[in-house]
Amino acid sequence: MSLVVVGSVAYDGIETPHGKVERALGGACTYISLSASYFTPVSVVAVVGEDFDAGDYQFLRSRNIDLEGLEQVPGKTFFWSGVYSEDMNDRTTLRTDLNVFAGFDPKLPADYLDQPYLFLGNIQPALQKSVRSQMNSPRFTGGDTMNFWINDFRDELLPTIREWDFLLINDSEARLLSGESNLKHAALRILDMGPKTVIIKRGEYGAMLFRRDQYFAVPGYLLDEVFDPTGAGDCFAGGFTGYLAECGFDLADRHIDHRTLSRAVIYGSVMGSFCCEKFGIDRFRTLTRSEIDARYREFKSFTEF
Amino acid sequence: MSLVVVGSVAYDGIETPHGKVERALGGACTYISLSASYFTPVSVVAVVGEDFDAGDYQFLRSRNIDLEGLEQVPGKTFFWSGVYSEDMNDRTTLRTDLNVFAGFDPKLPADYLDQPYLFLGNIQPALQKSVRSQMNSPRFTGGDTMNFWINDFRDELLPTIREWDFLLINDSEARLLSGESNLKHAALRILDMGPKTVIIKRGEYGAMLFRRDQYFAVPGYLLDEVFDPTGAGDCFAGGFTGYLAECGFDLADRHIDHRTLSRAVIYGSVMGSFCCEKFGIDRFRTLTRSEIDARYREFKSFTEF
Repeated sequence: MSLVVVGSVAYDGIETPHGKVERALGGACTYISLSASYFTPVSVVAVVGEDFDAGDYQFLRSRNIDLEGLEQVPGKTFFWSGVYSEDMNDRTTLRTDLNVFAGFDPKLPADYLDQPYLFLGNIQPALQKSVRSQMNSPRFTGGDTMNFWINDFRDELLPTIREWDFLLINDSEARLLSGESNLKHAALRILDMGPKTVIIKRGEYGAMLFRRDQYFAVPGYLLDEVFDPTGAGDCFAGGFTGYLAECGFDLADRHIDHRTLSRAVIYGSVMGSFCCEKFGIDRFRTLTRSEIDARYREFKSFTEF
Repeated sequence: MSLVVVGSVAYDGIETPHGKVERALGGACTYISLSASYFTPVSVVAVVGEDFDAGDYQFLRSRNIDLEGLEQVPGKTFFWSGVYSEDMNDRTTLRTDLNVFAGFDPKLPADYLDQPYLFLGNIQPALQKSVRSQMNSPRFTGGDTMNFWINDFRDELLPTIREWDFLLINDSEARLLSGESNLKHAALRILDMGPKTVIIKRGEYGAMLFRRDQYFAVPGYLLDEVFDPTGAGDCFAGGFTGYLAECGFDLADRHIDHRTLSRAVIYGSVMGSFCCEKFGIDRFRTLTRSEIDARYREFKSFTEF
């Protein structure tokens, strides 16, 4: 019983007002998997090059992440680098070397096909669709996308998300996808596109969940210091999806438990907040489930009235 | 047992993407008073000119607002006009004619001096201080301010807010006043300046309340349509303060009831959201307490987990 996660595994160069790393383990699939691993076993589908570090394999395995679907091929691992503005609200990409990721053609190991949960990280929509079709009926399929696919691959994206149970998206992407500036109208328009659940992430301002008959919202967690926001949205996805998997949740269920979905939004927020406390994935080197549950309770105490 | 509200009463010209009004009742004191009047009797301290409309007097009185402290003097009423951007996140002031407001020197009627609650709308800090000193020991004093006073009247502002039980301020003003960009640090710095409670308003993103031993946050209410945001922050102040007055709250009380303060933030948010549904103060011509309580329950249902 495992969550299959598809996406990029990369090395990142990151500069924030708090410091700089030249080359650190990153990529959407990495963040999602690490975050989800606190809730459920995770199976990864991704590609890396010959330069992928033995210590990184070891770290991911230590978090109970199955790497059978992490293909290693000749060439270099995807490399991205960027620099954040003083207030961290903007970032400039300095380099994007797709390397082996340019030829990524996800093939699922036989063991993965009957897994019950699937999360499709932000990659080309046609690839997301191909992975979905390789799986035998998962209990839920969720995914993420970005402005590039929304603008330039809309014809691929729409049939892809039509098959998803939920879509995780940030506020500006939700506006772009729907053509609506009001987020309520945007969410309703996206529900018309297929997904029965839409989660809109608003960074420091929190998150919102929409279904036809449900609305839930939570403010962001107020950190003492945002050290590095890289991967926070992916960690939200990992917490949200991982918690639903832990609960054995079935999003196709007609008698869906709204409370569980709301709590999944909180666990998503919790994991996104921890992600920002250190550079890259470093916070997950020490984070424990009891710290996660303590922050969940903190969310309860500062939102209850 | 009444809430004394000091501030501007004005006529506004407003243009939003939804329409335009040439001259409508407005001003911070008006919005705060109308909003608070759903919870508690209100007594106004303000000044208007000879052009102040009989219908406006009548409307305010119909909401149980005591106008003994609304001085009418020769000249014209304060006039402001502005136009909102397409997304409503910016507005440009077209005209500010202070008129009789330029000589505003608030003098409290004898009946007001023993009232238990005082809210000082955004006016020159020295005038706020003078009003506070005219009152015999109110059970709480709260107030608002703005960037102009923070930048150019800091020496007047600091001794003024030192005497307040709470300060209501928006996020950019909180950063300006404290010199801290992180809102948690900003709030703690402001608590050092005197007020034991700081409420930071974040517009569509919600609001946060800080005390030394308490933190509460709520997301914004998602409206179908933001018709006109003018006065929303003042209506928040009216809902927050009015609800505390209705509860007979004493902010100086050592055994303060945190739950009541959190609920006051919700009532503030509720009143701010209603304000945006029509032009100017028009929503308050039809709004009922049962609609307010229904929206309060809606806040509960979409934030509970």
